[in-house]
Amino acid sequence: MTKVLDKAKIEALGIEGGWTLGLADVVKYSDLDTYNHVNNKIYHTWFENARVLYLEMLGIVFSQASEIKPVVRSANITYDAPMYNAEEYITLARVSRLGRTSFVVEYAVWCDGTVRVTGDTTLVMVNQTATESRPVPDDLREIMITRDGAKTS
Amino acid sequence: MTKVLDKAKIEALGIEGGWTLGLADVVKYSDLDTYNHVNNKIYHTWFENARVLYLEMLGIVFSQASEIKPVVRSANITYDAPMYNAEEYITLARVSRLGRTSFVVEYAVWCDGTVRVTGDTTLVMVNQTATESRPVPDDLREIMITRDGAKTS
Amino acid sequence: MTKVLDKAKIEALGIEGGWTLGLADVVKYSDLDTYNHVNNKIYHTWFENARVLYLEMLGIVFSQASEIKPVVRSANITYDAPMYNAEEYITLARVSRLGRTSFVVEYAVWCDGTVRVTGDTTLVMVNQTATESRPVPDDLREIMITRDGAKTS
Amino acid sequence: MTKVLDKAKIEALGIEGGWTLGLADVVKYSDLDTYNHVNNKIYHTWFENARVLYLEMLGIVFSQASEIKPVVRSANITYDAPMYNAEEYITLARVSRLGRTSFVVEYAVWCDGTVRVTGDTTLVMVNQTATESRPVPDDLREIMITRDGAKTS
Repeated sequence: MTKVLDKAKIEALGIEGGWTLGLADVVKYSDLDTYNHVNNKIYHTWFENARVLYLEMLGIVFSQASEIKPVVRSANITYDAPMYNAEEYITLARVSRLGRTSFVVEYAVWCDGTVRVTGDTTLVMVNQTATESRPVPDDLREIMITRDGAKTS
Repeated sequence: MTKVLDKAKIEALGIEGGWTLGLADVVKYSDLDTYNHVNNKIYHTWFENARVLYLEMLGIVFSQASEIKPVVRSANITYDAPMYNAEEYITLARVSRLGRTSFVVEYAVWCDGTVRVTGDTTLVMVNQTATESRPVPDDLREIMITRDGAKTS
Repeated sequence: MTKVLDKAKIEALGIEGGWTLGLADVVKYSDLDTYNHVNNKIYHTWFENARVLYLEMLGIVFSQASEIKPVVRSANITYDAPMYNAEEYITLARVSRLGRTSFVVEYAVWCDGTVRVTGDTTLVMVNQTATESRPVPDDLREIMITRDGAKTS
Repeated sequence: MTKVLDKAKIEALGIEGGWTLGLADVVKYSDLDTYNHVNNKIYHTWFENARVLYLEMLGIVFSQASEIKPVVRSANITYDAPMYNAEEYITLARVSRLGRTSFVVEYAVWCDGTVRVTGDTTLVMVNQTATESRPVPDDLREIMITRDGAKTS
């Protein structure tokens, strides 16, 4: 099954960049498009799944009753090289930047020794009705800065 | 990553039914719908990925230049119980029936000791332009009957 | 946008079969797979969207608070002919059979004068916790029998 | 069906921004996620479908035999407001910037008088094997500059 890697396991594979979460998987037929390569949109799914797991592991509950929750504000992606059926890969994630009410999750898709795709998502903490921003809680800030090496600005 | 299980490994897990291929994975956020459970359509993706891998492992090449290739003629699915985020599961597959030009792949999703969803797909071997059916090659028939226990009718 | 057709409009197009809902749309790039035709799974999405709209138009509320709601029990699909990019099509739906607690929605994809794909879904009415079946309400039975021509058995 | 709007029709709706292609559609159940709103990834599908149609209408052939073709290099997206089931919307596109071998397609999702999501994609023209960049052909440059108002830099 999808294998979850922590910071130590990622480093043990010789993957640089201070990544704190890795999801190891293999390209499946349903990831491909008419070009026989992984469709551009699929990487967003990989990033989404990594991000949700990352946040759940931080203890963030995505219930509609939650008083604060993160929402995606923007996202960027860069395609460096294509990927093909049956290739094994690791989707890597870490928090790279941290503001008062927002933070940035960075991603990379690592495959056979090279980075194929990179991206990032900016999330904003909001109240239950998503009408106002809220400060990132102190315990999360601590982890993001200490473990992930997130830069505060 | 998605872990591929062969017949011996599947039996070693105590899973009955003579399955010859298993794909172990975990439910991801992108599998869920508004009901917070795995969407009905997602199981078709799991079946498709198992079927493509099964056929590739039989040596079937899905090139447009191939003189014969299998196409999906029909499919059935039965939902016995819902599945939820982060549940670990195995998508199981085997060829259960074999005709002169067609064969049936059966599937089951096994999770935490119970079968949640079952299904099957009828495939027909066709020529390169998909205009005429073709006999299932003898070497494939042999494997389907001997290893998978496919019934001929 | 996706155009919704009622029974009269469908018949006016010369489409036989007593269909009571039609969704007219066009094949998009994201519907295609490595064969450059519409992927097998996509038809399930078209059926799902037609079914949800059909049920909403019957006044069924899909809230988790609803005392009764329909859940999908099983589904079948048959592929008669492939579809390609930019083809215009209509996804057709009607209730064809009606039991005490269940009913069957039939579908067909009509394109350029021929039916490309057909299918059906069996739904069961259940209580809020989906632990027990419930009778199909009388007002819905009336519509399914009178308008859709659903057979009771 | 999905309705294609040209520059004049878009302007006639009072939509500003010089958009040259619009795809009018309605949110479907399959676009939603566990939050009951349109999933973040779905907008990428809408953008992809608009981009592919835009390029096809420019006469770009996406055959593997093509001597030059555009590939996606990077993409950005900003989420301004959520979208919900059954909302009618228009996905808007135009080429906003033009380099020697690359160009930028801008997008916006317009719904009920407001822009919900914006984005852009940078595409690079490459040779058949996608190993070298190629100049954007003069006839395409002409259209991008004159009709779309693309800025050259």
